[in-house]
Amino acid sequence: MQLNPHYAELNESYLFSTIAHKVTEYQNAHPEADVIRLGIGDVTLPLAKPVIEALHKAVDEMGRKETFRGYGPEQGYDFLREAIQGYYADRGVALELGEIFISDGAKSDLGNLLDLFSVQNTVLVPDPVYPVYVDDNVMAGRTIRYMAANAENNFLPMPDESTEADIVYLCSPNNPTGAAYTKAQLAEWVKWAKAHHAVILYDAAYECFVSEEGCARSIYEVEGAKEVAVEVCSFSKIAGFTGTRCGYTVVPFAIQSEGQSLNKMWLRRQTTKFNGVPYIVQRGAEAVFTEQGMREIQQNLDYYRRNAAVIAAALDEAGVWYCGGKNSPYVWMRCPGNMGSWEFFDWLLDTAHIVGTPGEGFGPCGKGYFRLTAFGDAQRTQEAAERLKDALATL
Amino acid sequence: MQLNPHYAELNESYLFSTIAHKVTEYQNAHPEADVIRLGIGDVTLPLAKPVIEALHKAVDEMGRKETFRGYGPEQGYDFLREAIQGYYADRGVALELGEIFISDGAKSDLGNLLDLFSVQNTVLVPDPVYPVYVDDNVMAGRTIRYMAANAENNFLPMPDESTEADIVYLCSPNNPTGAAYTKAQLAEWVKWAKAHHAVILYDAAYECFVSEEGCARSIYEVEGAKEVAVEVCSFSKIAGFTGTRCGYTVVPFAIQSEGQSLNKMWLRRQTTKFNGVPYIVQRGAEAVFTEQGMREIQQNLDYYRRNAAVIAAALDEAGVWYCGGKNSPYVWMRCPGNMGSWEFFDWLLDTAHIVGTPGEGFGPCGKGYFRLTAFGDAQRTQEAAERLKDALATL
Repeated sequence: MQLNPHYAELNESYLFSTIAHKVTEYQNAHPEADVIRLGIGDVTLPLAKPVIEALHKAVDEMGRKETFRGYGPEQGYDFLREAIQGYYADRGVALELGEIFISDGAKSDLGNLLDLFSVQNTVLVPDPVYPVYVDDNVMAGRTIRYMAANAENNFLPMPDESTEADIVYLCSPNNPTGAAYTKAQLAEWVKWAKAHHAVILYDAAYECFVSEEGCARSIYEVEGAKEVAVEVCSFSKIAGFTGTRCGYTVVPFAIQSEGQSLNKMWLRRQTTKFNGVPYIVQRGAEAVFTEQGMREIQQNLDYYRRNAAVIAAALDEAGVWYCGGKNSPYVWMRCPGNMGSWEFFDWLLDTAHIVGTPGEGFGPCGKGYFRLTAFGDAQRTQEAAERLKDALATL
Repeated sequence: MQLNPHYAELNESYLFSTIAHKVTEYQNAHPEADVIRLGIGDVTLPLAKPVIEALHKAVDEMGRKETFRGYGPEQGYDFLREAIQGYYADRGVALELGEIFISDGAKSDLGNLLDLFSVQNTVLVPDPVYPVYVDDNVMAGRTIRYMAANAENNFLPMPDESTEADIVYLCSPNNPTGAAYTKAQLAEWVKWAKAHHAVILYDAAYECFVSEEGCARSIYEVEGAKEVAVEVCSFSKIAGFTGTRCGYTVVPFAIQSEGQSLNKMWLRRQTTKFNGVPYIVQRGAEAVFTEQGMREIQQNLDYYRRNAAVIAAALDEAGVWYCGGKNSPYVWMRCPGNMGSWEFFDWLLDTAHIVGTPGEGFGPCGKGYFRLTAFGDAQRTQEAAERLKDALATL
């Protein structure tokens, strides 16, 4: 056999392994140092009580012959699809049940959706960004173009007359920058996509953090977006499902090309290559949308939001430029004193015993920037903010 | 954008929808008829007690901050990989931990593994067979060849000098025929694959049903198989996980081509496009391999085995040719009186009120054959066997 030749074109990502290596080395040399980790985008609060109760109940059902569930619908149970439909309806977005597909997480769908498109398509990816968009397309041999996200455009690149692509990734609120598009900005993207017969893959994994007026939580808040945009979302950040694995993808009926329906193709893909999300997990996800579930989940999100505010306040006080932190659990700061990302990483670890993520790990435009996350413990984040402020004051 | 042109080449599968339609129509016309369904390959017994307990325990862990789990390793937790390693070791097959990947089921991996191979590769698929092997490759635009499985080769096709392919699917015990390769037969396939620089995708989803001496439960029982075979397996049938979703795939380190390691490529694919199986589900799967778990699961398998024996005995008595039923939950019978598969379907529904699956739904060589499954309720299966015997006696 011949292997897929494009795997050899992938860049090995050493970002998180290099970080882990550097931290271990530092701790071995300074065993007394109390290191605080604000590097990884993983949640730390446990699942909400209504979710835990729903999971237990579903486990019990699986243990009795009368209530046992075997194969479920590949696209997810209607009880969960209806709950998601309601979640969108509350924000004025009308979705058909058949447009909602339950998945095991955004990462899977962001990769698998590409099966539906020609390998001849050109892809447009923001820089910096979540690295899998690039890798997914390198694996398939597609041509990738980058659009620069930088301080000049507030890390929110927009299309202009020269923008050409078949598939565009938008991630808002963005990982790693925390920047969030407004509805008006997304309307420009939708208009551009229609004019260029392009499709937008809209990653809304962090939508639950949007709190500023005017910022969009779904691209479907824009009229006509259903003709050009697929929206991928997840329970990972809204409900702490990073280890519980559930997400959803909206593939509108209105996306058509060459007489084919993208929705129908995705249904065919999923029924052929996927067997659905565990019944137990879908029941847990359903509980997120109950009144009590939403209340508890908002408390968790507020906990992380307060962490972000604490980090942001420290940077404000130190007079350091940053974005994110308001509609996002990520704070994206400019490295002080013209330090490079890795230089700042070493300096911050050594000076304040804080671990963050160097911006250039997310793309060349991330050079000179640094990501801090708000997913840590509140008290430790408070402590980190104090140390950060003190350290920056010495520069 | 341009869509993947190969989706338009897929044949729509109407098999199970046609069956459902015919059954509904029959029941509307004959509301008094007590229809028994032996058509679908889904389990009916609940999850075993040790699995249920492990699931509850893991749910509790997810509800407490100290024991909460976020992102896990994409390739699965070591506790489960070690349990699988032990399961193979008990049969004399030595696997490295890094060769075992936990998945959300065999269907996903059987499709996703194809990402690793060139689209220029030619694929060899048995006929009849589980339909997704064909669809997965049509979607990618690969050339597909078929090898006839029929009564002459006991539904176990073997390679000869003329056999040419880059990728070969073997499914043993087979769905739908229930035929199982012996170790000696698999050794011939391994020899052929080595000589032709081909890879074997070995679907072992039904290995737990193997009970006859000489039949293989893993292709790795054959020496040298690790250089040419990937083995895909699942908890669906061994432990009733069809709605709980967990499986595993073995990608040996020894499979190399053009200086690339297939194992390394698969790890890269999974870390990029997958985020692992729910922690809770992995704890449930781990419990399958405990002493009590194995004992209870064997009781369930024996329950289904008795169902298969009951169906087989009815066919023996009626003098109807069949295979399967011994190492498999499927009984694959020749339709009596030269009836076609659909003709027999209608006749059996009308005469005995039994629903089965017409063989031609699995490929042209399935014409004139019929699949019955042993996954039903014991009492109902007994009743169906009686009716089947009586009906066949009238011919």
